[in-house]
Amino acid sequence: MPRNSIPLDVQPDRPLILLSNDDGVDANGLAALASALTGLGTLAVVAPIQEQSAVGHSITVRDPMRAHPWLFEGPEGPIWARAVTGTPADCVKLASQKLLPRRPDLVVSGINHGPNAAVNVIYSGTVSAATEAAILGIPSFAVSHCSWDPEVDFEAAGRYARIVAGRILEHGLPSGVLLNVNVPDQKMEHIRGIEVTRQAHARWEEEFEERRDPMNRPYYWLGGHFVNLDDGHDTDLHAIDQGYVSVTPIHYDLTAYKHLSRLEAWDWHVESINPVPTDI
Amino acid sequence: MPRNSIPLDVQPDRPLILLSNDDGVDANGLAALASALTGLGTLAVVAPIQEQSAVGHSITVRDPMRAHPWLFEGPEGPIWARAVTGTPADCVKLASQKLLPRRPDLVVSGINHGPNAAVNVIYSGTVSAATEAAILGIPSFAVSHCSWDPEVDFEAAGRYARIVAGRILEHGLPSGVLLNVNVPDQKMEHIRGIEVTRQAHARWEEEFEERRDPMNRPYYWLGGHFVNLDDGHDTDLHAIDQGYVSVTPIHYDLTAYKHLSRLEAWDWHVESINPVPTDI
Repeated sequence: MPRNSIPLDVQPDRPLILLSNDDGVDANGLAALASALTGLGTLAVVAPIQEQSAVGHSITVRDPMRAHPWLFEGPEGPIWARAVTGTPADCVKLASQKLLPRRPDLVVSGINHGPNAAVNVIYSGTVSAATEAAILGIPSFAVSHCSWDPEVDFEAAGRYARIVAGRILEHGLPSGVLLNVNVPDQKMEHIRGIEVTRQAHARWEEEFEERRDPMNRPYYWLGGHFVNLDDGHDTDLHAIDQGYVSVTPIHYDLTAYKHLSRLEAWDWHVESINPVPTDI
Repeated sequence: MPRNSIPLDVQPDRPLILLSNDDGVDANGLAALASALTGLGTLAVVAPIQEQSAVGHSITVRDPMRAHPWLFEGPEGPIWARAVTGTPADCVKLASQKLLPRRPDLVVSGINHGPNAAVNVIYSGTVSAATEAAILGIPSFAVSHCSWDPEVDFEAAGRYARIVAGRILEHGLPSGVLLNVNVPDQKMEHIRGIEVTRQAHARWEEEFEERRDPMNRPYYWLGGHFVNLDDGHDTDLHAIDQGYVSVTPIHYDLTAYKHLSRLEAWDWHVESINPVPTDI
């Protein structure tokens, strides 16, 4: 296992920027992110040792975690890095509370290989790292490249990540809010700019494929295709489709506020709870 | 492995109710839920074969899944059941799209052993099963008992689960909205009723404990305690604390709508993206 014993040079007047992701510490997108943010502050990398896509906001509560010193080459030399045997949310918790000498000023998660827009936000490990930072009170954003091409060029996404990082360091973010950034699969010169968006209403049409093992027992692969159900022009999917970088402010208060009053109007009176109700 | 080859008696005019959880197919809370809902419709159980707490909205995309026929005893005899080698969200996807002869009319996840209120909603596998149902357009709720006691009595929680199930079958739910139900750790006669609430603002104060293995290498256990930062009287935590069953409507649109305009006011003009910006 590669070892990285370089010191972490944290200065009080220089932003400490924690980088993480869900594709794993050795993913190209993370290296591209580190390159893009070089010079904005002191960079530190704490990322999963293994790919963790689609883990959602999973955390590790039943097993201990390791944090291996890791060789992570940046454009100006090695960057302090740890590879964690956990999820993206674990990485941010462990880094902020234990591994780093102080809380980071900014957490950036990415650059994900593939989009994290619409309903996919809740399945996304990339977003969960940034969400965990927001829960801890640290400004953060997730950044994803909307291409699945293994040979994708992350340069444009990196440039935009740097712009968003700069804006957040300048303006801050409201408590509990993070940004979810998706960069369209376009050449840099074709990207039309940045749009602030809302999460589109969409879903997956799942088709589980049933196969048989050599002993004729069934097993299932999750497959399917993504369906946009939202024709709004203010959504993340629309912005991406139109060649814009989508920036969506998201939070982790899942309360469906506009339905509170409707639900309160239901008859919740339950005097009959004792004895056992038989015909509700 | 126990086998359960009982047929699933689905009738067009009788609600088909899918039960799942994150504590695993053999958890006492799931058995209590099945008992409590007996008679409300045709019950089917599709739950993780292993405990899946704190998995958040994780799904299985890199491995195939098995769905083992399972012996699940209900109060009126065995209930059709499958134990799935996946997460709670996987169970609901696979059941609704592949295993059941038709889409269920209601999905109920629980009864979880321990509360799922405030920020814990996003870590919760229990809630994620119900959220997945909402994404698929199926009315759903998650129900949790606020006790960690291994010997907890689920009867009161079961009674309230039945009431909520009845209300949802009667009223339906708005598209994309599910209910998150938490039952206080009180004897049935001390529970004061049901309150419709919002998710409290709270967080975990994490304390990672560093230990050393026999080879003196460090590893970390996640620990910590829960801190309520919200003194509102309309929250889930307040209702539970006051002895009420908390019912929170939640959704999976994470857009922080009230911050959209503020974010739009930032300077997002990026004409300088080509060539490389050097001093943003």
